[in-house]
Parts: sequence; C-alpha cells; structure tokens
Amino acid sequence: MTPMEKRYRIKPNSDFNIQDLPTLDKQAVLPTKEERDAYVAKQAIKLDELQNMLYAEGKHKILVVLQGMDTAGKDGTIRKVFQNIDPLGVRAEAFKTPTPIEAAHDYLWRVHQVVPKTGELVIFNRSHYEDVLITQVRGWIDETECQRRLAHINDFERLLSETGTTILKFFLHISKEEQRSRLQERLDKPEKNWKFNPGDLEDRARWDAYQNQYNRVIEATSTETAPWYAIPADSKSSRNQIIIDILIERLTALDMTYPQVDTHGWPKKVK
Amino acid sequence: MTPMEKRYRIKPNSDFNIQDLPTLDKQAVLPTKEERDAYVAKQAIKLDELQNMLYAEGKHKILVVLQGMDTAGKDGTIRKVFQNIDPLGVRAEAFKTPTPIEAAHDYLWRVHQVVPKTGELVIFNRSHYEDVLITQVRGWIDETECQRRLAHINDFERLLSETGTTILKFFLHISKEEQRSRLQERLDKPEKNWKFNPGDLEDRARWDAYQNQYNRVIEATSTETAPWYAIPADSKSSRNQIIIDILIERLTALDMTYPQVDTHGWPKKVK
Repeated sequence: MTPMEKRYRIKPNSDFNIQDLPTLDKQAVLPTKEERDAYVAKQAIKLDELQNMLYAEGKHKILVVLQGMDTAGKDGTIRKVFQNIDPLGVRAEAFKTPTPIEAAHDYLWRVHQVVPKTGELVIFNRSHYEDVLITQVRGWIDETECQRRLAHINDFERLLSETGTTILKFFLHISKEEQRSRLQERLDKPEKNWKFNPGDLEDRARWDAYQNQYNRVIEATSTETAPWYAIPADSKSSRNQIIIDILIERLTALDMTYPQVDTHGWPKKVK
Repeated sequence: MTPMEKRYRIKPNSDFNIQDLPTLDKQAVLPTKEERDAYVAKQAIKLDELQNMLYAEGKHKILVVLQGMDTAGKDGTIRKVFQNIDPLGVRAEAFKTPTPIEAAHDYLWRVHQVVPKTGELVIFNRSHYEDVLITQVRGWIDETECQRRLAHINDFERLLSETGTTILKFFLHISKEEQRSRLQERLDKPEKNWKFNPGDLEDRARWDAYQNQYNRVIEATSTETAPWYAIPADSKSSRNQIIIDILIERLTALDMTYPQVDTHGWPKKVK
C-alpha cells in the first residue's frame, strides 16, 4: 500500500466525520500548481501505458466512480487525469435524470448495463450513489428505502468485484466557500454560463443535508473491495495529482502483463 | 471545401478503381515523420477544442467509421488522432463476431444501439460494413442479399444523417506488401504476438476478393451526406495527418458555438 492510496482511503467500519476530512491538503502534493500539472501530464502517460496493458491482457475490469457536490470537479478530473488515455478501452458514463424507460426499471438496471467488460476502464460521472443522495436529501425515498438501497448497492458492488472488477470510488470533497466561488464564476463569465444550472442553487441551499448524507453513505459503502477515497478537491491540480497517483497505485498492484501467446503452429514468414 | 477533404473524398457515383488509389501520397503531407507527428500532436489539441464545443453545444452528432484490411491501422488511428480528446464526449465502439443475441437480430440492430447522441463523437472500429465485406468474401451471403444490404445501409445512414448525424467513413488503404511487413512484425516481436491472429492469414489469402468488394461497397455507399475517404495508409504518420485534417475541416464547417444561455432571472451573487 503506497502513500496516496492509504492516505485517502476510508477504511471499512471506521468512524469519521466528513467535516473533519480536508478539502485542501498541501502536505501530500507537490508545492506549486505548475509542478503538479507537469507531474499529472507525465503520470497520464504512465496511466495510458497501464490501460494499454489492461486492454491487451483482457483480464481485469476497472470501474472508477466520481461523486461530489456540483462544481466539485467531476468533469475536470475526467479531462485531466485521463488526458492521455486511448479511447479504445475507456468509456465515460454520465448518469442524468432517469428517462421514463429507466425509471420503469429498478434503479440499478441502467447502471448494470454499462459496467466495464474485461479489458475496459469505465468512469462513472455520477453513479448509482445519486439514488441514495439526492433522493434522500429531497425526501423522494424514506429511511427504510434508503437502508434497503445501501444494502443493494453493497450487494451489487460485491457481485462486480467477485466477477473481476476493480472498483475505485472517489468523493471529490470541496468546501462550501469553494463551491460559492466556482458557481459565481459560472454566473460571471459568459463563456461559462452554459455550465450554470439554477437548480444547483437549490442543492447548495441543502449543503449540510448533503454532507450528512455523504458521510453516512460513504460510511455504509466503503468496503475492502470497493473503497471510497475522500479527495481534497478545493485545488484542482492537487485533486488531479492525488487521483492519478491512486489510480496508478491500484492498477500497478494488479501486476498485469502483456498476454503470452502460444505461437506453436504459426508460420515463420508471412507470404 | 479545403484540400484534404476534397483530395481524398470518393465522389458519389464516380467511377474509380481502388487499385489506382494511392496507398502512399507524399505530396499532400509534411515531408518528414517528425514534422507530421508534431503536426498531429498540435492538431489533436485543436480537435479536442472542437469536441468540447460539440459537447457544450449539444446539437450535432458525429460518427466516424474506420474500415480497412487487418493491420491497416484502425487502432493506431484512434490512439493518435484522438490522443487529446476528453473521454467525456467520445466513445469508441468495436464490432466483433456477433454474439448469439446480436446474431438473433437484424445486423443493424447492435449498430443502431451505439450511434452517437447529441454532443457525442463516436468512433466505429470496424462497423456494419463488415456485414457486406467478410460476409460476401467468405460466401456467407449471396449476391441478392448483398445488394439488399447495401440498400439497407444507405437507408440507415440517411436516417442518421437526416436526424443530425455527421458521418465520416475512412477506408484505410494499405498495400499488400505493407500488410505483409506488419503481420511479419507481429510474428517476430514477442510483445506484438498478442495482436496476431492466424485467421488474419486466411483473409490475406483472399486479398484480391476483399479489394474488389471494398471497391464495390465504397462505390455503392459513398454519398453526399455520408462520404467515404480513401486514405493512403502505408505511412502511419501521413495517415494520421490526413485524417485529423479531414476531421477538423468537417467539424469546423459545422460552425459550432458555445451555447448562449438566457440568464434572465438568475441571481447576481451566489450566497
């Protein structure tokens, strides 16, 4: 277990309060933004090499879950951390308001359809966790249903894990003040207006309820095989450095190799 | 219409012989491999900017089809041309031997499921064109069925095009000698063994039949709205330069803009 993975992993059954977890942690990362950006650009190439081996080997499946409050940096993480990755073996899946067909099924139905197959790395931009977050905070499900769902989710992730999926769940942890500043930027800059959604303010008004629910959900679903990482995300470049390090640590631990092929019976020369 | 797009597009109803189209065309590209690689790396950033706007605007759909003989460079094109693209709005779809469920449906069923939605760029690594290529060359379908399918495919692509999809079809054109050399490399280099498939030699033995069928298929399906481009692909760096130029030309022609948002009623300050 190397530093970043260990530093930010939420241990199963541990007692923690999300309010006490840092949204900024300068001690773990390189001193300046320039250094961190250069480091991430370099590590992005290494991540690409690991993903190539993942694709060639065709044995493991990788699922990366990104969750966080609005403006926490889900899109930015995908953009920067996976900046060098070959589209051949990577897929980003965004979960929006369910369509009527999706809503007519159980809430894990649409999720199960897009999990990674062997050799694939899939990034969930939001996920099935919304089904125990916004739904609970807005009062669309009651306490009994919330508890049932937390159990479903652990069951579902155990199924994925026991059938060869490596799961990494990142909670992008920002402060309320940082969110204010990022939303304000979307209001102020005409070229960022399209990213602003007035509904974001309604969720912001429920900040504490969301933090409480995140705390509880992460506590209930950070398992040995599908751990949560609480990533300090007030600094974008620090967030990227931490996430790319954890990804590389976990992928390296899979000890992948290019497949050994039985070449018996192959011709020596192509005519 | 700018140079590359015009130079390599197969005009509808034109008379041509694939044998006469170049597999190497040094006049159209930069003189050295180093210059071409540097150029593609620079243009890849521009392509990323266009894709960002595509995603933000959420209006157009882009479908890129890659076809070619084994080793023609489909994987390499995806890797190099889309090296800078954000996984958020891009998806690569590989079509392999149909599964039993896929085979139990019409052959366009699985294809239709994965076409791009608004704001998305989807790359087909092989495509529905296999259903009129290998199937005909291997004698799995007869002439009547082949003609029917060519009509289905034009109908299908017209549907996509008339519902907002920009279609670009690239035939990666290599010489038989270049294929020999690339297959030999896969045999000789242990780290490339995994990419070798003895079945490739069976298709290579049918080289002329494939070329004839490609000729006929491209002739029948290069339309105003879904043109084929015959790309000289014996040189990988030239191939990349030509393809990225065509993509940028076609995407630029869409005249995309970041969405203008009606900010009436929005707050001035985030609390």
